[in-house]
Amino acid sequence: MSRIASTIAAAVETPSVVISLQAVESNIARMAEAIKKTGVQLRPHAKTHKLPQMAQRQLDAGAIGITVAKIAEAEVMAAGGITDIFVAYPIVALSKLERAIKLVQSGVRLIIGVDSLEGALRISQVATKHGVQLEARMEIESGLNRTGVDAAAAPALAQQISKLDGVLLSGIFTYRGAMLSGSATMDLKAAGHEEGRLMVQTAEAIRAAGVNIRDISVGSSPTALYAAEIEGITEVRPGTYIYQDVMQAAFGLCEIDDCAGAVIATVVSRPTPTRIVIDGGSKTFATDVQPDKAPLHLKGFGHILGDPDAVFERMNEEHGVISVQADSPYEVGDVIAIIPNHICSTINLHNFVYLQHADGTLAQAPVAARGLLE
Amino acid sequence: MSRIASTIAAAVETPSVVISLQAVESNIARMAEAIKKTGVQLRPHAKTHKLPQMAQRQLDAGAIGITVAKIAEAEVMAAGGITDIFVAYPIVALSKLERAIKLVQSGVRLIIGVDSLEGALRISQVATKHGVQLEARMEIESGLNRTGVDAAAAPALAQQISKLDGVLLSGIFTYRGAMLSGSATMDLKAAGHEEGRLMVQTAEAIRAAGVNIRDISVGSSPTALYAAEIEGITEVRPGTYIYQDVMQAAFGLCEIDDCAGAVIATVVSRPTPTRIVIDGGSKTFATDVQPDKAPLHLKGFGHILGDPDAVFERMNEEHGVISVQADSPYEVGDVIAIIPNHICSTINLHNFVYLQHADGTLAQAPVAARGLLE
Repeated sequence: MSRIASTIAAAVETPSVVISLQAVESNIARMAEAIKKTGVQLRPHAKTHKLPQMAQRQLDAGAIGITVAKIAEAEVMAAGGITDIFVAYPIVALSKLERAIKLVQSGVRLIIGVDSLEGALRISQVATKHGVQLEARMEIESGLNRTGVDAAAAPALAQQISKLDGVLLSGIFTYRGAMLSGSATMDLKAAGHEEGRLMVQTAEAIRAAGVNIRDISVGSSPTALYAAEIEGITEVRPGTYIYQDVMQAAFGLCEIDDCAGAVIATVVSRPTPTRIVIDGGSKTFATDVQPDKAPLHLKGFGHILGDPDAVFERMNEEHGVISVQADSPYEVGDVIAIIPNHICSTINLHNFVYLQHADGTLAQAPVAARGLLE
Repeated sequence: MSRIASTIAAAVETPSVVISLQAVESNIARMAEAIKKTGVQLRPHAKTHKLPQMAQRQLDAGAIGITVAKIAEAEVMAAGGITDIFVAYPIVALSKLERAIKLVQSGVRLIIGVDSLEGALRISQVATKHGVQLEARMEIESGLNRTGVDAAAAPALAQQISKLDGVLLSGIFTYRGAMLSGSATMDLKAAGHEEGRLMVQTAEAIRAAGVNIRDISVGSSPTALYAAEIEGITEVRPGTYIYQDVMQAAFGLCEIDDCAGAVIATVVSRPTPTRIVIDGGSKTFATDVQPDKAPLHLKGFGHILGDPDAVFERMNEEHGVISVQADSPYEVGDVIAIIPNHICSTINLHNFVYLQHADGTLAQAPVAARGLLE
């Protein structure tokens, strides 16, 4: 049985997101314990929940700090009492760097990402203007081909950055995840080991070039446990594990019943016996993880709790179209719960979530760090 | 030259949306004039902008009322002074119907959608409890296979609904749009005419069955002008035309330079000469309209203003990866403007937009009706 009790359905307006705090605590504890055994530090990514209170739960379970993707998210986390924050993203806009300085001056240990000399020069420019040193980690390319410096070019760039005033280059980081672009298969253990080895080798080359970096930080919910097995890795940054979703279940990282977040929706129409329509579409469920794509081949846009054979076929902005068995008992007005393919980008669509306590009571919580500028 | 002046770039934090009010006024006027010539009434869908002030501009140009998809959106529009609102969606939740009643009692002319007897019974139940009559339009299936009653079943359902206390069945509506599921080609004129003819025939059958409906309301930005050519159609509900987007341009309905909304983003990395990365991904740009799909075969996730050959290849949550020419002048820190594939769902990701006035000044406006419950 899923921890999202169907009895909550009647208590919420739809469409909305309900988060089971029991499932959250269980997911947090499981990752924290597994990472603790490796001796590596855990710095969860807050992109999934965007809620300081969830970050605090992760810290309470042993995380050393939190990861975010934007300065604005760091500001929200700092306002919520989090004092050790890594913005794992190249921060280059001068206005954002000014805000980073303010966070440092307020007493937060803030680390930002850098992946170019141009970016480093901008950090140096703003930091020296304020007589402050900004801690930075250099991002390394590990297969996703987005941001990040090629490992081969990293030692030379590290040397250049380490000479700049106002920049403390304390480590390197990467995010590889489970799926490389275009890959048709997945092997999480191989992916995590590859990610870990590349990073340790790169760190050694940087140290050999005379730059004494300390931290080697890697992703991700699918790869963290394996990457942490590689000697030399100091930190992992999984995010999605706190809520889990259909994608994580397809990776074999959890069961559907471990998923803490579900979208609650109302059946507004059953135009044919085999089709129901719910009051949530692409403005309610994220569409960044599409069905039927390699390597996961997800079946539809989410998992209908209690009816694993139903297929969430397609969406318009406010319509979700689900194929059901002709003899299934759905009626207009029924409320159902759906685990989304990708919980992080789905949460990002919602202004607030309902938190479900162990006794079944619900409380609204604003998704504090959503919809903000970098 | 696009109306989104590149000079505004430096004035905004990124990623964010800028809306050119000049382009808005031009798009509003063009549709209003074209529809006026057909003698059909215009009731624009507010799903695109979600802003009462934009709805007011549409009314000022001759629209008779506004369309929304949720009761919550109707509440926001009513609070913003809009008094004639059609919720073109089957409203079945009792709590939502209670809110509909409140809007009616506040003096709003509110119309809601209905597409089942079960839904109609719920409307009747709540309306009679309050001694109020709710105006409703019955939704007709016209090819999208989501909500809506089959045309053949419509007269019998109309008879049943018209006998219910508390429900005033005043018309029928549909949304066909330009693309039927799985269609590989498009012919907007044929689609609009088909939509219009089906609806007029259905209305005639309903009237022949003794139910005297008045309004025959159809979509959409791509089909409105053609559907309005069919004798008997009384109202069209285009939405996207106010801002336009890459999808509308691909339909041939506008030029890219007519697009009023662009995402402003910062180049945070140029890891290789042919790849730039911007600070907006799937939490900034909607992914519901994917590239390379029939019939539009859009090239990437948006159009980079000033660089039509650049391809917005892929996204992660906060990364946008764009392929550029090796000799293009992008530098880390540059700010660029991108017209999204689908402006409606992109706007829905943002808490506010910057409105750009004719003199170039910018003002923040909250996207008032986003992220709300039905």
